[in-house]
Amino acid sequence: MKAIAVRDGAGEAELLELPQPEPAAGEALVRTLRVGVDGTDHEVIAGSHGGSPEGEDYLVLGHEAVGVVEDAHDTTLEKGDVVVPTVRRPPNGTNRYFENDEPDMAPDGQYHERGIVGAHGFMAEYFTSPESALIKLNPSLAEYGFLVEPISITEKALEHAEASRSAFEWAPESALVLGNGSLGLLTLAMFEHRFERTYCLGRRDRPDPTIDIIESLGSTYINSNDTPVSEIPETYEAPDLIYEATGYAKHPFESINALAPNGVLAALGVPNDWTFEINGGALHRELVLHNKAIVGSVNSNRRQFEAAVESLNSLSKPYLASLVTGVYDLESFEKAFANDDTTIKNAVQFSTYEKR
Amino acid sequence: MKAIAVRDGAGEAELLELPQPEPAAGEALVRTLRVGVDGTDHEVIAGSHGGSPEGEDYLVLGHEAVGVVEDAHDTTLEKGDVVVPTVRRPPNGTNRYFENDEPDMAPDGQYHERGIVGAHGFMAEYFTSPESALIKLNPSLAEYGFLVEPISITEKALEHAEASRSAFEWAPESALVLGNGSLGLLTLAMFEHRFERTYCLGRRDRPDPTIDIIESLGSTYINSNDTPVSEIPETYEAPDLIYEATGYAKHPFESINALAPNGVLAALGVPNDWTFEINGGALHRELVLHNKAIVGSVNSNRRQFEAAVESLNSLSKPYLASLVTGVYDLESFEKAFANDDTTIKNAVQFSTYEKR
Repeated sequence: MKAIAVRDGAGEAELLELPQPEPAAGEALVRTLRVGVDGTDHEVIAGSHGGSPEGEDYLVLGHEAVGVVEDAHDTTLEKGDVVVPTVRRPPNGTNRYFENDEPDMAPDGQYHERGIVGAHGFMAEYFTSPESALIKLNPSLAEYGFLVEPISITEKALEHAEASRSAFEWAPESALVLGNGSLGLLTLAMFEHRFERTYCLGRRDRPDPTIDIIESLGSTYINSNDTPVSEIPETYEAPDLIYEATGYAKHPFESINALAPNGVLAALGVPNDWTFEINGGALHRELVLHNKAIVGSVNSNRRQFEAAVESLNSLSKPYLASLVTGVYDLESFEKAFANDDTTIKNAVQFSTYEKR
Repeated sequence: MKAIAVRDGAGEAELLELPQPEPAAGEALVRTLRVGVDGTDHEVIAGSHGGSPEGEDYLVLGHEAVGVVEDAHDTTLEKGDVVVPTVRRPPNGTNRYFENDEPDMAPDGQYHERGIVGAHGFMAEYFTSPESALIKLNPSLAEYGFLVEPISITEKALEHAEASRSAFEWAPESALVLGNGSLGLLTLAMFEHRFERTYCLGRRDRPDPTIDIIESLGSTYINSNDTPVSEIPETYEAPDLIYEATGYAKHPFESINALAPNGVLAALGVPNDWTFEINGGALHRELVLHNKAIVGSVNSNRRQFEAAVESLNSLSKPYLASLVTGVYDLESFEKAFANDDTTIKNAVQFSTYEKR
């Protein structure tokens, strides 16, 4: 079968011919439909994040997948079920995070991530997975099923952010999403019914398709070139929740001041080292005197994937369509890895739901 | 009656003769037993924090009080009840934070704090208070009742810290208290039965009474001159919870790296401005990839005062006695405001429970 992989040190994805995997005990064989591409894939290809399975010199890419059960094998699934796989797998033997169904809380070294670190991903015509790591969804969602994984990332971050505010009567009205990439735009849509007012910060000038998308939700676009995070409270309002999806390392620190009293920042970006000055005294004081919170959040677990399926179902198809820049078949897979200013979300198509 | 107050700009506390207050509707008249002194009092005296009630040029000090009901007036309390007052009061008219019984969550300008900002404190022979702001405690606790307020500060901070970890199975084993002042030492004792291993960081060399107190709990003293926060994970262990009570602005940022994966920092200090360099990229990344959280916490509400009464009851009298450096009567009240390296906790005694 064909698979899209990166050889160690190659710096670019290539098409490989690999044997079709055979399901082990407790696993199903899944025919891949679509696999999304995100920033992590670009980092993995560049070699700045993740790594190949032990003893191998290449990694099959892809962690945002949707597929169809081809062979239920000894699972309770049925051939034809549309499924989305979770990403983390136990490394060598299980551990308490996997036993608790919370692999998302496992620290470094206590997990593999399919398509990212230590385990092959889903960018192949077929993959196998344990039943416990497959979430069923309605076939009507198959087309956009590769968005379940990124949505689950937000489900988790929101769960943790809300938990941090659960010791008092928190009545948030406004939310700010930092970043107008695909994750930011998915999150903004998820916020539509949770907050009275939403804002999305980006650094693009008009005209730009993401600004149109933001405004189609009734949300306010904030151009960071005009209004940096520090000026948002004055120019717009101090948000009750800030969701950071930029990976810009100054954003969490600027957010401490920008938050409304009793507000929370959910941080999701993974920046490189960057040393800069802060007024640490003022930030510390502001955190304390206004009861503010910061939660870092990575990955997601099965429960959050299930919530993501519900969220995906609640988002309008035209909105989802507006986020998908291109879906490319195997012959032109390189186009899916293009990363220019016009790309919101690309995916690779391996097969279609209707027929192979 | 006699009261200890600071005149605007005077920079020191003085004894004033004031009329005895009369309880209004819903209020009781309380005869003051003891009032503790803390860092906030020193800041208020220095003029760097808080302020006198509107239209007045002095502020009666004191926010850590215990007293005896002298006149129940039209409350359901009884003469002789031992009570501790909460600190925040509605400023001009009430607001939703007071209506929710969460004045601790009110932002700047939406509260007065007795003895700190906008309202006279409890360092007077008598004070009045609404019944809703008085917490009854067993007379056997009267001697140490002035510790209920600082303990309630920790109750709140812990409540918020634990809430932030409630979205997953958090099984903390170790806690680090930054600061060996009275709040740090009270907190350390409260941690004794919550964590398997506790640590307390200070900057004092041996011999020192606080180190003896820390070790009497079976806790480990960490001298920050030998082991800065950044080296604690290597030298001791990465704690699941860090409680910051130093007001040292670098501590929250250093704590992000020092925390164990999935750990939480409760920040309580209120530092002045201080600009310094951080590796913001590394801190941001660490927060996210290891699901860490920071919660700022200030003040406390009635529920947390009630929890504090329970906690006070569970702490041993010899331990409490070891924290109280001196209890001074009105004639030598200045000694209670001494702030040297040998002081842990001072209080002023206005009367005794047994008789006036």
